[in-house]
Amino acid sequence: MSVMRLESYAAGAWVAPSGDLKPLRSAVTGDVVAELGSQKLDFAGMADHARQVGGPALRAMTFHDRAFAIKALAQYLNDRREALYELSYETGATKPDSMIDIDGGIGTLFVYSSKARRELPDDRVYVDGALEQLSRSGNFVGQHVATPLQGVAVHINAFNFPVWGMLEKLAPTLIAGVPAIVKPASATAWLAEACFRMIVESGLFPEGAVQFIAGSTGDLLDRLTGQDVVSFTGSASTASMLRANPKIIGSSVRFVAEQDSLNASVLGPDAAPGTPEFDAFIKEVHREMTAKAGQKCTAVRRIFVPDAHRDAVTDALIARLEKTVVGNPRSEGVRMGALASLAQRDDVLEKAGILATEARRVFGDPDAFSVTDADAGAGAFVPPMLFSCDDPDGAQKLHSVEAFGPVSTIMPYRDLGHALKLANRGEGSLVASVFTHDPAVARQAVLEAGAFHGRLYFANRDTGKEATGHGSPLPHMVHGGPGRAGGGEELGGVRGVMHYMQRTAIQASPDLIAGITNRYVAGASTEEKEPHPFRLTFGELEPGRTLWAGPREVTLADIEHFAEFTGDTFYAHMDEEAAAANPFFPGRVAHGYLILSFAAGMFVEAAPGPVLANYGLDNLRFMKPVSPGDTLKVRLTVKQKTRRKDEYGEVRWDVGVYNQEGEQVAAYELLTMNAM
Amino acid sequence: MSVMRLESYAAGAWVAPSGDLKPLRSAVTGDVVAELGSQKLDFAGMADHARQVGGPALRAMTFHDRAFAIKALAQYLNDRREALYELSYETGATKPDSMIDIDGGIGTLFVYSSKARRELPDDRVYVDGALEQLSRSGNFVGQHVATPLQGVAVHINAFNFPVWGMLEKLAPTLIAGVPAIVKPASATAWLAEACFRMIVESGLFPEGAVQFIAGSTGDLLDRLTGQDVVSFTGSASTASMLRANPKIIGSSVRFVAEQDSLNASVLGPDAAPGTPEFDAFIKEVHREMTAKAGQKCTAVRRIFVPDAHRDAVTDALIARLEKTVVGNPRSEGVRMGALASLAQRDDVLEKAGILATEARRVFGDPDAFSVTDADAGAGAFVPPMLFSCDDPDGAQKLHSVEAFGPVSTIMPYRDLGHALKLANRGEGSLVASVFTHDPAVARQAVLEAGAFHGRLYFANRDTGKEATGHGSPLPHMVHGGPGRAGGGEELGGVRGVMHYMQRTAIQASPDLIAGITNRYVAGASTEEKEPHPFRLTFGELEPGRTLWAGPREVTLADIEHFAEFTGDTFYAHMDEEAAAANPFFPGRVAHGYLILSFAAGMFVEAAPGPVLANYGLDNLRFMKPVSPGDTLKVRLTVKQKTRRKDEYGEVRWDVGVYNQEGEQVAAYELLTMNAM
Repeated sequence: MSVMRLESYAAGAWVAPSGDLKPLRSAVTGDVVAELGSQKLDFAGMADHARQVGGPALRAMTFHDRAFAIKALAQYLNDRREALYELSYETGATKPDSMIDIDGGIGTLFVYSSKARRELPDDRVYVDGALEQLSRSGNFVGQHVATPLQGVAVHINAFNFPVWGMLEKLAPTLIAGVPAIVKPASATAWLAEACFRMIVESGLFPEGAVQFIAGSTGDLLDRLTGQDVVSFTGSASTASMLRANPKIIGSSVRFVAEQDSLNASVLGPDAAPGTPEFDAFIKEVHREMTAKAGQKCTAVRRIFVPDAHRDAVTDALIARLEKTVVGNPRSEGVRMGALASLAQRDDVLEKAGILATEARRVFGDPDAFSVTDADAGAGAFVPPMLFSCDDPDGAQKLHSVEAFGPVSTIMPYRDLGHALKLANRGEGSLVASVFTHDPAVARQAVLEAGAFHGRLYFANRDTGKEATGHGSPLPHMVHGGPGRAGGGEELGGVRGVMHYMQRTAIQASPDLIAGITNRYVAGASTEEKEPHPFRLTFGELEPGRTLWAGPREVTLADIEHFAEFTGDTFYAHMDEEAAAANPFFPGRVAHGYLILSFAAGMFVEAAPGPVLANYGLDNLRFMKPVSPGDTLKVRLTVKQKTRRKDEYGEVRWDVGVYNQEGEQVAAYELLTMNAM
Repeated sequence: MSVMRLESYAAGAWVAPSGDLKPLRSAVTGDVVAELGSQKLDFAGMADHARQVGGPALRAMTFHDRAFAIKALAQYLNDRREALYELSYETGATKPDSMIDIDGGIGTLFVYSSKARRELPDDRVYVDGALEQLSRSGNFVGQHVATPLQGVAVHINAFNFPVWGMLEKLAPTLIAGVPAIVKPASATAWLAEACFRMIVESGLFPEGAVQFIAGSTGDLLDRLTGQDVVSFTGSASTASMLRANPKIIGSSVRFVAEQDSLNASVLGPDAAPGTPEFDAFIKEVHREMTAKAGQKCTAVRRIFVPDAHRDAVTDALIARLEKTVVGNPRSEGVRMGALASLAQRDDVLEKAGILATEARRVFGDPDAFSVTDADAGAGAFVPPMLFSCDDPDGAQKLHSVEAFGPVSTIMPYRDLGHALKLANRGEGSLVASVFTHDPAVARQAVLEAGAFHGRLYFANRDTGKEATGHGSPLPHMVHGGPGRAGGGEELGGVRGVMHYMQRTAIQASPDLIAGITNRYVAGASTEEKEPHPFRLTFGELEPGRTLWAGPREVTLADIEHFAEFTGDTFYAHMDEEAAAANPFFPGRVAHGYLILSFAAGMFVEAAPGPVLANYGLDNLRFMKPVSPGDTLKVRLTVKQKTRRKDEYGEVRWDVGVYNQEGEQVAAYELLTMNAM
């Protein structure tokens, strides 16, 4: 492999490295793989480029436009991932490790694209939560919305997942409509640069949407404003240093941090040896110790087991660790590769030494272990190391010092409350897992430990093979944790997108809210005219377009007939005396479903047209009883449109049913699929 | 009035002031009203008391328990507000000013209690968002939840709203289940202390839930952890100092800041003199300048008007300002009282001097103005001061320096885009208002300026008298803004409660999720047994309790009969050929409402019992067409229970309708009211 000279991508141009070149070495062989330059880029120019070129271009697109571009990017990278695997081996990663990084990153793009198209509007304004009634008559209402920040997102990534770490931040940022400047960790920057190059070559995003820094961020952070975001993954010490930047403090720059933490795994009190939970626990803890050679910010560092099962757990883990082949990740049979660099190896050994002051090592001797198909001295190899501690209550370092490698410590507990208290001693983690089949154990864990952990992962005989793993952040679920874990949050679907948007409380008249959000809201103006709205295509319908239909009287005979036909002979419909004794009814009343059915009968157009199907209904509330002799009218108003396929889209209708006094008796939202 | 010696409330006991006593003076007369001590409290003990006594007691309550206590507190304070008005006059506030503070604070409690009972479960775990499908078979699912932080909330309040500022932070904190330590601003601490004393005397919250610091916070912030929250309202410089605290940085302590900002009000391009919008704008800007003598973090500091209307606006504002009587707030006819202290007066005059370097003063001379019924030299009086600037693009100080008093500057703009750009020059504000009747203006304002403002307030002829005011944060809507405004968010209903809770991503089997959240979720175990669940009271029903009912065949005759009876003769039900041509249907299909009606007919119990009414339905989706000859069964499962009144509560049922192949054809949630 020739030595790669890593380039930056600034203001639309690749910038070759210059200045003193720093060699980046293979974690496996120690050979130089790539070189990083030391020159300073024009960071002010990069930030301006993002703000003045990338931002406006992204903001001109809708959430769906951006989501489709993310999907296309996922497909583009998916077609090219073999090239990335090759580069990944030199980071010390085995093929399964690389799949976590590369396929995991691509999968995150796919999920984000799909969730964004399902959960965000095909518009440029996100509507957050329900309309708020702020006045009696409804002429003044509130609506929270969110719009993209008008600055730049600076992504400072960690060395352990050069692809996933980049893509999991880019997906929500770009979907939000915010341009990004990516700064990868040096140790594995060649892989990040290769993937970033593909993103640029794909041409899927407008100019200025993404830039890349191969090297130091220089004075970039000093140039940030309150419209910018720093999203950081890495060590607590670096995070503290960045957070203290006077510009970040003074301009309230958003700072999302995800830091390594002392993640715990708890063997539930019910999970004795012989249960499926016990076996799953052993398998998972072993996997978490050895996957990526333990270089995962979510890896299990602290293993809590019932006192009685300590020996059984220790024996079972050692049996698995003994079979774990360490060596060249390209070689068949090798289960665990190298750490990312010699510097990482030194750090892990130093930290393991600190842990050894409070626990004894029961497996793995860094001075005596075998390495397959590689020069143990040249590569960054360590063995998996298992520690065991007798006094977890007295321990300090075990709850605060992390060896960022295949290193973990077994600690015994007395009862569940004790285990959770010990888990919380980490003072905030990304994830804790509990292996239990008992819902009461799970609820206690949430109530007593939830506040300390960004994620709680429960596995048992039911979750079986479908469980995605203690250590795997999923795009659907938030990733991040309080305290030591950095206090940040990433991913979690739309939640992750919101970090790059500003939530704004809008107070206005219903008409203005409708204009701002492109959806009809209660109290806004409606327009009723020919033809019947069911005769209009998706494209022709506009929010506010309305049909009034009816009237139709509901007779006692209708109610009795409906009861007999459907079998719904509930006494409120059939027995005047019993109905009148009910706190909600004046006497016999019409069935709710009769009201819905008659409403449909009033507004439906029978002949084929653009409305293809009624496929659902939301937020139905019966507001007033309908008595025999009442006469109903129905109002059908286009509330919102969302394209779904090339041929059709979803139309959400606001429906109101009213009695002869003009009082609303039912409210709901009807969903139809309409042809384009 | 005798001199009050302000006490702290620490670890359940009142602590009298000692050390050097600092006098606090009436803003109106300069007389000493109260004294603050300089002793150091046992801050570590206070934090421990909150964490070890207050927190566990609050967490043992449900959200509804805590919300009921907040409602009772609102009633308790409401009965005692006359005593607070008396103390409020000495802060310089007029009666209407005091009502913003005192009645506004009490109103915030009422709204929070009501929203919490409506939007939070009657449980100790908050369910955030929808269930996430994480596996094919559904045996492994995700659910975000939130639980109370296990630390303490430190509330550092501003001097301008001693009651509202305290209560608007306490309501979401206590509803979240987190104990608080309140530190009021010194200048008006006597009013805060009097109100806090009522809270303690009410006995409505458990011991340790609230504590109070009359004086300095000493080393309290150095004792915080990642489970604690600092919620700060005040100046940017104090916020920056606190944020830089190494403990706050190092432990990722949550820091919610709400800082004064350069709020803008824009007269819309459509709002020419003579329109209702023009008149509303003049009235509102005048009110914002003079209410609380301009000491509101939301007050209008920058007034943007179309070039053509600059003189008309200036004249109209001056006409109103000329009639504004300044003086003793207890005196009839006085419209504007004093600033909170002589120090504030000096600061406002200094800042007005800076503004005068970029704008000329067109109203209000601090060296020549009349003060009614008070000694102008002894009290902290200033006149309202209106400035006017010719070159808002060239101005720097006008967009960055705030005179925290009755001071505002008129600036002309060319077009709406220009006005919004100038508004954004404040680099982040709590609120901007736009007076317009044009939805297109409103949408442009949101798209171009939303990201810079925590709140956008639109007023016009439609909002009329119901509009709540540019400067009034409402409990329903978020309060806070990006950048200069501090980057924080308070209030906004449940959003404000979340700042005191930890969101945790739960991954588990459906049974465990059901156990954790006390609600049935798809895939969780169900229990079917006698009697029919409609025969059970609210208290007897448990999530998972299930009834299977049916079967019932749907015949072609049923469909035709239903069509004829209801009038819904949509072709998909009536015309085989046309139906088959529809992309969603195999041929003629049953009406969705027929399916719902038959389902009800299968599961309903006719005789009177604990089920009082079906009052709504949510999330209905038709998943598969039902063809003539299909046979349906229905499953009814208790999903969730929420008490509503002493006599009855809401039961949410998960309903599935299945065909003869066991395929689900419809899914929905049914809502009933059930007797206790």
